[in-house]
Amino acid sequence: MTVTYSSKVANATFFGFHRLLLKWKGSIYKLLYREFIVFATLYTAISVLYRFFLTGSQKRFFEKLSIYCDKYAEQIPVTFVLGFYVTLVVNRWWNQFVNLPWPDRLMFLISSCVQGRDEYGRLLRRTLMRYVNLTSLLIFRSVSTAVYKRFPTVDHVVGAGFMTRYERKIFDDLKSPHLKYWVPFVWFGNLASKARKEGRIRDSVDLQTLLNEMNKYRSWCSLLFGYDWVGIPLVYTQVVTLAVYTFFFACLIGRQFLDTDQGYQGHDLDLYIPIFTLLQFFFYAGWLKVAEQLINPFGEDDDDFETNWCIDRNLQVSLLAVDEMHMNLPRMEKDIYWN
Amino acid sequence: MTVTYSSKVANATFFGFHRLLLKWKGSIYKLLYREFIVFATLYTAISVLYRFFLTGSQKRFFEKLSIYCDKYAEQIPVTFVLGFYVTLVVNRWWNQFVNLPWPDRLMFLISSCVQGRDEYGRLLRRTLMRYVNLTSLLIFRSVSTAVYKRFPTVDHVVGAGFMTRYERKIFDDLKSPHLKYWVPFVWFGNLASKARKEGRIRDSVDLQTLLNEMNKYRSWCSLLFGYDWVGIPLVYTQVVTLAVYTFFFACLIGRQFLDTDQGYQGHDLDLYIPIFTLLQFFFYAGWLKVAEQLINPFGEDDDDFETNWCIDRNLQVSLLAVDEMHMNLPRMEKDIYWN
Amino acid sequence: MTVTYSSKVANATFFGFHRLLLKWKGSIYKLLYREFIVFATLYTAISVLYRFFLTGSQKRFFEKLSIYCDKYAEQIPVTFVLGFYVTLVVNRWWNQFVNLPWPDRLMFLISSCVQGRDEYGRLLRRTLMRYVNLTSLLIFRSVSTAVYKRFPTVDHVVGAGFMTRYERKIFDDLKSPHLKYWVPFVWFGNLASKARKEGRIRDSVDLQTLLNEMNKYRSWCSLLFGYDWVGIPLVYTQVVTLAVYTFFFACLIGRQFLDTDQGYQGHDLDLYIPIFTLLQFFFYAGWLKVAEQLINPFGEDDDDFETNWCIDRNLQVSLLAVDEMHMNLPRMEKDIYWN
Amino acid sequence: MTVTYSSKVANATFFGFHRLLLKWKGSIYKLLYREFIVFATLYTAISVLYRFFLTGSQKRFFEKLSIYCDKYAEQIPVTFVLGFYVTLVVNRWWNQFVNLPWPDRLMFLISSCVQGRDEYGRLLRRTLMRYVNLTSLLIFRSVSTAVYKRFPTVDHVVGAGFMTRYERKIFDDLKSPHLKYWVPFVWFGNLASKARKEGRIRDSVDLQTLLNEMNKYRSWCSLLFGYDWVGIPLVYTQVVTLAVYTFFFACLIGRQFLDTDQGYQGHDLDLYIPIFTLLQFFFYAGWLKVAEQLINPFGEDDDDFETNWCIDRNLQVSLLAVDEMHMNLPRMEKDIYWN
Amino acid sequence: MTVTYSSKVANATFFGFHRLLLKWKGSIYKLLYREFIVFATLYTAISVLYRFFLTGSQKRFFEKLSIYCDKYAEQIPVTFVLGFYVTLVVNRWWNQFVNLPWPDRLMFLISSCVQGRDEYGRLLRRTLMRYVNLTSLLIFRSVSTAVYKRFPTVDHVVGAGFMTRYERKIFDDLKSPHLKYWVPFVWFGNLASKARKEGRIRDSVDLQTLLNEMNKYRSWCSLLFGYDWVGIPLVYTQVVTLAVYTFFFACLIGRQFLDTDQGYQGHDLDLYIPIFTLLQFFFYAGWLKVAEQLINPFGEDDDDFETNWCIDRNLQVSLLAVDEMHMNLPRMEKDIYWN
Repeated sequence: MTVTYSSKVANATFFGFHRLLLKWKGSIYKLLYREFIVFATLYTAISVLYRFFLTGSQKRFFEKLSIYCDKYAEQIPVTFVLGFYVTLVVNRWWNQFVNLPWPDRLMFLISSCVQGRDEYGRLLRRTLMRYVNLTSLLIFRSVSTAVYKRFPTVDHVVGAGFMTRYERKIFDDLKSPHLKYWVPFVWFGNLASKARKEGRIRDSVDLQTLLNEMNKYRSWCSLLFGYDWVGIPLVYTQVVTLAVYTFFFACLIGRQFLDTDQGYQGHDLDLYIPIFTLLQFFFYAGWLKVAEQLINPFGEDDDDFETNWCIDRNLQVSLLAVDEMHMNLPRMEKDIYWN
Repeated sequence: MTVTYSSKVANATFFGFHRLLLKWKGSIYKLLYREFIVFATLYTAISVLYRFFLTGSQKRFFEKLSIYCDKYAEQIPVTFVLGFYVTLVVNRWWNQFVNLPWPDRLMFLISSCVQGRDEYGRLLRRTLMRYVNLTSLLIFRSVSTAVYKRFPTVDHVVGAGFMTRYERKIFDDLKSPHLKYWVPFVWFGNLASKARKEGRIRDSVDLQTLLNEMNKYRSWCSLLFGYDWVGIPLVYTQVVTLAVYTFFFACLIGRQFLDTDQGYQGHDLDLYIPIFTLLQFFFYAGWLKVAEQLINPFGEDDDDFETNWCIDRNLQVSLLAVDEMHMNLPRMEKDIYWN
Repeated sequence: MTVTYSSKVANATFFGFHRLLLKWKGSIYKLLYREFIVFATLYTAISVLYRFFLTGSQKRFFEKLSIYCDKYAEQIPVTFVLGFYVTLVVNRWWNQFVNLPWPDRLMFLISSCVQGRDEYGRLLRRTLMRYVNLTSLLIFRSVSTAVYKRFPTVDHVVGAGFMTRYERKIFDDLKSPHLKYWVPFVWFGNLASKARKEGRIRDSVDLQTLLNEMNKYRSWCSLLFGYDWVGIPLVYTQVVTLAVYTFFFACLIGRQFLDTDQGYQGHDLDLYIPIFTLLQFFFYAGWLKVAEQLINPFGEDDDDFETNWCIDRNLQVSLLAVDEMHMNLPRMEKDIYWN
Repeated sequence: MTVTYSSKVANATFFGFHRLLLKWKGSIYKLLYREFIVFATLYTAISVLYRFFLTGSQKRFFEKLSIYCDKYAEQIPVTFVLGFYVTLVVNRWWNQFVNLPWPDRLMFLISSCVQGRDEYGRLLRRTLMRYVNLTSLLIFRSVSTAVYKRFPTVDHVVGAGFMTRYERKIFDDLKSPHLKYWVPFVWFGNLASKARKEGRIRDSVDLQTLLNEMNKYRSWCSLLFGYDWVGIPLVYTQVVTLAVYTFFFACLIGRQFLDTDQGYQGHDLDLYIPIFTLLQFFFYAGWLKVAEQLINPFGEDDDDFETNWCIDRNLQVSLLAVDEMHMNLPRMEKDIYWN
Repeated sequence: MTVTYSSKVANATFFGFHRLLLKWKGSIYKLLYREFIVFATLYTAISVLYRFFLTGSQKRFFEKLSIYCDKYAEQIPVTFVLGFYVTLVVNRWWNQFVNLPWPDRLMFLISSCVQGRDEYGRLLRRTLMRYVNLTSLLIFRSVSTAVYKRFPTVDHVVGAGFMTRYERKIFDDLKSPHLKYWVPFVWFGNLASKARKEGRIRDSVDLQTLLNEMNKYRSWCSLLFGYDWVGIPLVYTQVVTLAVYTFFFACLIGRQFLDTDQGYQGHDLDLYIPIFTLLQFFFYAGWLKVAEQLINPFGEDDDDFETNWCIDRNLQVSLLAVDEMHMNLPRMEKDIYWN
């Protein structure tokens, strides 16, 4: 379920964003607390080791090592690598959202262009609409783990009413080594063409508007599929992950408080708790978590798209619009500004 | 109300932007003065504490702490994190502006394609136009806090003349667990289709142009809804906020003027007022405020979109265009360049 | 008048861009020389003050202050803030250029789709074209200071032949508290629809192509209006301006040449003229000037769009195309590659 | 074959990306291990040379050289140059993916708009579809090395059934010094026009929808061609490569562990293995590899597009859709939500 | 002629990009060698001056100056300014490529929608096509120096067969103070409209598809014109050039090897050849050259678009497609997968 907080930030107020820091759901704390515990534990372990278990010369070596690590930790370009990478991930994520297929445009057209309030007319409109929903369901099944869990087999698709038994038979009989999510669209096109011949769709203009809209819908579907199929190249993700992990590894040793008596530069204070390093952990690991969460927005994270809800909403709404509401118009009345 | 200053910067003049620094409305000062006071007060409090209340050894500890904080404050990548984040927010904000639904395109088409200067024709055009305005109103209600305050219930929508009582009854009778802002568009489509049958819309070409335009309008509406529904992931906002707040927290301690007699490097001057730290507060906090203000442009900030004004303008103008102005053409005359 | 230099850089040659450094019109020198003089004067004044008027201890204080200022000047993230901001401004500026309304697409369509070489046909085509030009003029008047100066009142619009007296009367009679630049488009739509009824436009396909094109034109107009209405949020501009001004303020003191005898680090040379600081002034202030010049491209800067020229060109060309050139075809001949 | 890992990152989990670090296929290790071995060997060689073979004064010179190199290595702006360059490459790569020509939109239209279940009708639809596939094949041959290997001559194209012998003859007879991949589209247009005359395509609306869709397909094809033809300017790629190579060259000498007895600053520890430099090699060289892999996504890298698979899939699926499935509709039944 | 190297980088191989470093044509070496020689000569001259001609105290002064210059050279934000600027230039360059007008879409439509294999039909199609090519030629003449050299006067345009003498006369007779590249499009529209009346174009649907396509073509043309007319603001280019030149000026002095005996920090090594400074020259000047080369892609650089070739190709191909190939279809045969 997407975490919506826009109403909380409608106005820019006194320390406006601080309220967001107190949320738990979808928050940085919920996403990071496990990593944070691991990091803090390791840091403490090393600190304890250094303070209590190392001999004098080991301590001297560790101190040099620590300074060495600290020096290189600063040279790792975590900020830039993350900045460029997260920008890429966020853009892809938003494009996926924008290309979620909604059948609303098609249902308006089907409701107004496929004629006949008799049973055959209703059947036509409902079937066309069902094909549209079926296609997006087939796509969602291969894109979203949540949807796949709900519809693990085509039987479940049939059972949920998206496909009839007879359609399933024809679907299964089609021999193709490739994915067949495009099949309902061929049916849609052919059925619309048939309706045109039978006069249920008035003329080619109406028909082509429908087909064009269908093709738009298909493009959304296939774009989603494409985003899933061709992700950000693995190397890029690995480069970024390596950079961040290396940085934290270097911090574990390099940000230890060293014996103030040794007089190392910048090591004249022992706070025990490396407050700024822990905060840095939050920034960088949190930034990486943004990427982790958004790189596949069809999972079950707090912030992922609710595809199962979409599927239900689309079927319910679109059948309602093309059947019950078809030509069921409110009586026209003069509005209150008439003259 | 959006703060428009473009006429002030039409020409690049001598220190052209300095005039903008003197504005109050929508300015950085108005947005930040409260945070600034808090920051300055805390800084002063710590300064007073350090100068007058700490004992010698406490002072030495504080001085070490201050140097430690200052060192890490510089390592916090506020600039980049803010740069990438604000760029993202500004892009979303502008896209929302560009996708504000304006009924002008539809009103031109309805005025020229829906025939008949008799009462039925007027009723048709006004009703179609009303459905368009009604949809955007329904969307605005769920997107904008200002509009929601004005139209807290559907009764208010009916009262303002966007919906008739009879339409409301049908609207309420539709059983759907989902939002119903698409309903007026089904009516629009069906009514247009009916008008086509009755010959008020001449042919399918005219009809489909209308329906396509309606679908464009719907896409704007649903995109606005999408921007509200799926915001920038909470984690991202939290990461940025944490980074900025941590930076200022580190500055409170790290930018204190230390006892010049102690001979700390870079601490041989005591100005009492940390002028550059305060200016930095203005840059960074101001930059974050840009994000706060734009992340939800439908609130009541000085720079937010005037949705209530839009709603009124759209209804007034669109009814005028499709009713009074329909086929009310100025007499054609030869222009002054004729031959 | 836009400064066009693309022909000067057609080929990448030996130190190719150095020729651009010698231009005056629209150049950094012309834009900045006044600020530069102010900056240099202030710098000199401070320098003279320091060298000749301060007492010994005042000098010591000033030196510390200077080092302090210099240290913080380097911490001000002018580069990034400017980089992100100017990128934003340049994108907006280019989008405004791309959305300048040109009537060419409409004039081709009107010339080929509105029939009749008789006077009524000519009147029809000219009037339609005039409405198009009128709309963009109305928009330009509210967007561009240069156009507003030329057409301060609607009388000037009538006088220049964009509107007839009769149209003006109808225009004024329309009661609306809102801007009325959309009015000529309603006339356009209705007139086209009338022409369709009278057979001057052959069928709905021709009519709808015209209306769609008109709506595109309208979208350009309203986008221009939108860019003017909703600028970059004031806070953002203020943040950037503050950052740059603060930087230069810090430089005035921090980049003084200090007494080399005092042995301050990095202060063992006295050049009198701070050549690099002056060059930095040119970069940063020049970069900010880029933003100042482009933030409103409808002013009277050297690099602003020539809206008045556009208005004249559009009217002249479009009337020529739809009237004189209508069906005035060159005799078809075989070209030289025939067979 | 594209490396798909999106299902592995569906949910943001505990150290979510670490699993990706263990993949081999398409991974940074597979891509970089050879370069890494070379780099490590050179580093070791220099290290051995310094430690065992240089005389005392040679060592001192080497140490100075090393410090000199280290100082400049840090000044090379590898991060930024790579950041900007990789962003550019990734954008181009994704645009190429988005513009891969898929015939699905066309096959829906052909299946529903080209009438006749008789042999002539089938022949028409199959031939139209074949022309579409032929065009993309011709483009792919000049763009993708993998496809070119599979279809080195036009004979292979004929042999694979994309072109008939007779078509090939006409194709070869066309005299043009330029590429002829556009020829099948002229045939497509003319054949569709002929079908319109023979009544197989019902009217101009159906015909123009087909032709528009064909033109969209052609635009995708030519855009792919354009991306191949006009790459990122060679200079840019060279600049980036030079920067990265120089950086590593500087590291080879500058990151050596120097004799700790000499007391050079930051050289009081000898770890033998320059762990952070090796990790830096992985970041930067890995980042450059991202660019290398994506700059031409039609090669045979692990992450390149499977163009040969596309070609097969498109032919098989599109012939199936326009022939076997044409008007082969499942019987309409009431769905389970009927009333 | 564009330098195409994509086939060389199809696969990511061992040190994949190093092969690119050895190319000459369009390479950084070819573009930069003159500047490089100048830079190296000046550096050597200063070095010789310092080493052999200066007196002791002059040397001391020079050394201080050198350290001063070096310090400021590092403060000049060349990387960022170049990064942002080159990104802008590259985007514009690619958009110009994408908007190069290709007549292919129009020629498909004309070939299939303008009827008649008789001489009048051929004449019609060829003339329409010629008008299209003529327009882009007129645009190219004002945009591209190479094309302008080839067609310095309208006589050359007539001579090359793009315009007939009679057309030229009408063209010249049109009285307009503005550019007249739009004139052939008015002819195109009117001629198409005439063909529609004579039944050569079947109906308004076919006609409007043609006119829409023509308008798309026109938009490409005018966008190219716009890119030429309104370039990147001169100030921006000057700022970037100044920054880079200043940096190299500072390097000339600041990167000299100083007398190691004086014990300046970081100056304990004298290599004579400032290898890293020379490499930096290659990066930064090379990066700037990328911009110089792409800022006007219609010149005669190695990497510029081959507009003259385009013009020839477009005319040849488009006349072929609409004349010889019109309705000259290969016999339809069953493909090899039939059943």
